[in-house]
Amino acid sequence: MPTRGIESSLQIWVTKSLVSCWREALAEGIGTFILVFAGTGAVMANYLSEGAITHIGISFVFGAVVAALIYSLGHISYAHFNPAVTLAFWSSGFFAKKRVLPYILGQLVGAIAASTLLLISLGRVANLGATIPLNGNWLQSLVLEFVLTFILMFVILGSGLDRRAHIGFAGLAIGLTVGMEAAFMGLITGASMNPARSFGPALVGGIWQHHWVYWVAPILGAQLAVIVYRQLSYGFRDFKE
Amino acid sequence: MPTRGIESSLQIWVTKSLVSCWREALAEGIGTFILVFAGTGAVMANYLSEGAITHIGISFVFGAVVAALIYSLGHISYAHFNPAVTLAFWSSGFFAKKRVLPYILGQLVGAIAASTLLLISLGRVANLGATIPLNGNWLQSLVLEFVLTFILMFVILGSGLDRRAHIGFAGLAIGLTVGMEAAFMGLITGASMNPARSFGPALVGGIWQHHWVYWVAPILGAQLAVIVYRQLSYGFRDFKE
Amino acid sequence: MPTRGIESSLQIWVTKSLVSCWREALAEGIGTFILVFAGTGAVMANYLSEGAITHIGISFVFGAVVAALIYSLGHISYAHFNPAVTLAFWSSGFFAKKRVLPYILGQLVGAIAASTLLLISLGRVANLGATIPLNGNWLQSLVLEFVLTFILMFVILGSGLDRRAHIGFAGLAIGLTVGMEAAFMGLITGASMNPARSFGPALVGGIWQHHWVYWVAPILGAQLAVIVYRQLSYGFRDFKE
Amino acid sequence: MPTRGIESSLQIWVTKSLVSCWREALAEGIGTFILVFAGTGAVMANYLSEGAITHIGISFVFGAVVAALIYSLGHISYAHFNPAVTLAFWSSGFFAKKRVLPYILGQLVGAIAASTLLLISLGRVANLGATIPLNGNWLQSLVLEFVLTFILMFVILGSGLDRRAHIGFAGLAIGLTVGMEAAFMGLITGASMNPARSFGPALVGGIWQHHWVYWVAPILGAQLAVIVYRQLSYGFRDFKE
Repeated sequence: MPTRGIESSLQIWVTKSLVSCWREALAEGIGTFILVFAGTGAVMANYLSEGAITHIGISFVFGAVVAALIYSLGHISYAHFNPAVTLAFWSSGFFAKKRVLPYILGQLVGAIAASTLLLISLGRVANLGATIPLNGNWLQSLVLEFVLTFILMFVILGSGLDRRAHIGFAGLAIGLTVGMEAAFMGLITGASMNPARSFGPALVGGIWQHHWVYWVAPILGAQLAVIVYRQLSYGFRDFKE
Repeated sequence: MPTRGIESSLQIWVTKSLVSCWREALAEGIGTFILVFAGTGAVMANYLSEGAITHIGISFVFGAVVAALIYSLGHISYAHFNPAVTLAFWSSGFFAKKRVLPYILGQLVGAIAASTLLLISLGRVANLGATIPLNGNWLQSLVLEFVLTFILMFVILGSGLDRRAHIGFAGLAIGLTVGMEAAFMGLITGASMNPARSFGPALVGGIWQHHWVYWVAPILGAQLAVIVYRQLSYGFRDFKE
Repeated sequence: MPTRGIESSLQIWVTKSLVSCWREALAEGIGTFILVFAGTGAVMANYLSEGAITHIGISFVFGAVVAALIYSLGHISYAHFNPAVTLAFWSSGFFAKKRVLPYILGQLVGAIAASTLLLISLGRVANLGATIPLNGNWLQSLVLEFVLTFILMFVILGSGLDRRAHIGFAGLAIGLTVGMEAAFMGLITGASMNPARSFGPALVGGIWQHHWVYWVAPILGAQLAVIVYRQLSYGFRDFKE
Repeated sequence: MPTRGIESSLQIWVTKSLVSCWREALAEGIGTFILVFAGTGAVMANYLSEGAITHIGISFVFGAVVAALIYSLGHISYAHFNPAVTLAFWSSGFFAKKRVLPYILGQLVGAIAASTLLLISLGRVANLGATIPLNGNWLQSLVLEFVLTFILMFVILGSGLDRRAHIGFAGLAIGLTVGMEAAFMGLITGASMNPARSFGPALVGGIWQHHWVYWVAPILGAQLAVIVYRQLSYGFRDFKE
């Protein structure tokens, strides 16, 4: 059967890709696990503590965990933890095509593991931190998530990849960006900017309202950032595979 | 008609200036767009969420976005995003006169674009984040915005331009300054320190009460910082045009 | 009597160890004193001020004091302030066995001194900041403290010990991790991640409910991080004894 | 008259000292002005806005302004802004005796100027941010301010003066220390740690209850930190006069 042949080919290809960068894919998996465990865990713990963590507290957790992970894993896997970022790295040209799928697989598995652990340890509360457009207004969230991810990817490119940037500060700049975007739009769109972060709670909790928004908007927003930043930059860093 | 000749000359001069530094002017435009989108967006989202972001949350957004943008664009345009800062760079002598107008144009266009997008996506709420003196006391705001912008420009000069500063930390120092000034004076003057940040919501929302305060005070305060810091410093960095 | 002989041998061994690294053990003692004084002091002052410090304020204190201490003492004792971290350093191979006991002794003495000073100066309030599982659910706290300390030690290894990390930022990354973990799990497990931090208030206040959880979970969680991170890393920094 | 001769000698000596380091003394004056203007201004604005800034917001302002000023003026005057710190620098041996008085004069003048400006612009509210022991318990505040300033000076020595410290991060470490100490003890002692910061509001507002506490405790606490840290360090940076 031809279908089976295709499946086998795919399996072989995925396996080969994973073998060639298993270390990076594992790092992405662990990093995304930590990101989703901390961030959506804060949403759930805030519910359990009747709001004692506060919205700003949740935003701080998202920003802080991203910054900490960039300093911990940036030198291993470039610290994407986000399929939209991985796809933007790829389209910007300094990221090998064969790494894209293992990275995204790692990210999704990490996110699912985090949501599963949170479900077991804290119970089925606060929709497991799933992102849902406010009042079901998906168009508003689509537009705003697009802009939010554009800003996030723009900061990633400017602070982390530009040859003339103070590279050490990228983790701080990107963490601050995630934290402040969570603060100012979290109550309207969920401020996901990250399909993996939205996918974990959605799958484990079975919460799929307007879920596509959190794939389409971040991926397109990050792509736009690549196009725009390319106009501004005098050149990117060299990346060794 | 002579007036027409002057207009044409002006057009030519502006066009030439823009051509010579379009990249920097574009960076200033995008940066100011992000700054105003995040900062005044936080004011608006706070209104929509009945205060859940809190005053300190808004201040955090303003400070964080400034820091993130300095790390993202500082190496391209020096990350002004503020006409008062651009004019102070000019008067301090290491910024070419021909760049002043393109920079300010970029900043104003970016701010207007941000306020327009916020109006479309969030609606006409919270005066679009416009800055208005508390109780209409324009004299109080004039004095305090003057002092606030003096402090901001003083930190910019000391942390970012002084030859002996730890230059990488300038983004952190300036972001903290904006954040803490927003925190301690935001409820009294609006803590603008930035004519472009005030102009975007004013134009798009048609809110012009005491708007001149947010041009005069920041511009003069930043000029005073240049005069004072010059007394202290042993020399500034070299700037390549 | 043989028992006495063993005791004497132990005394001699401990004394010798302390002599060989008294400076580091003293640094660990002072650092843990400051950590416990600030962190649990914030819990107690929050009680005294009827919640004015807030949960996020307490989390900020824990994160900030850890970051500040790493920058102040990291170059002297590597800034553990935590028996679980000391044991993980040891098992990861670049920390001499003979230093383990003096370090842990220093940490425990520092924590006890801090709780004693807080008891004297603020009174017996808020259980002296002791960590107790929410609703007495020790299994939940055991699992979550295990994961929290895994994350903390993972960040320590990645940001502070990996040969390719931006080493200067380790203090920031680790402080942010402690702060965000305190924010998102502090109300459920106490977010100790540190046997010494839990031991001080427990001993001085005589509060021993489920105290063993705060030894077993952090120690095992930190050990797991060493095992996992070792798979990812291309090598650690050299450590001079 | 002999008294007059002594006065004249003093005048000559002070004048000579000021001439030899007028630049540094001016930097200290401006820095202390900004510190007191922002910090006590936040206390006053919090009163005027009925608590909207919050206690943690005030703590953030104190920490952020200290960090920003260290990055702005550290390379000019070492950024003391605090008589207790100046005296500790002196007793630790790498600060010339003749600089002590001009520094402290600059700091006091700066603090007085800030309190005067705040009185004029915001009115006589919130005791101008003066520090007063909670419930008049001066002994409690004496002990705690002593410990707080010990911690602050310990962090200054460890992160900023030790030869092996990551010197660039000193501003961050010290700012975090001030911010977290303000957060956890501000409601009990005022968390001054700084005679100049307490003197400005006291003089301008005429509020002298237990004012001596805020001179004695910080000065002695900082001295103890010098004695203790000297035991730990392997050496300090060289300071050029």
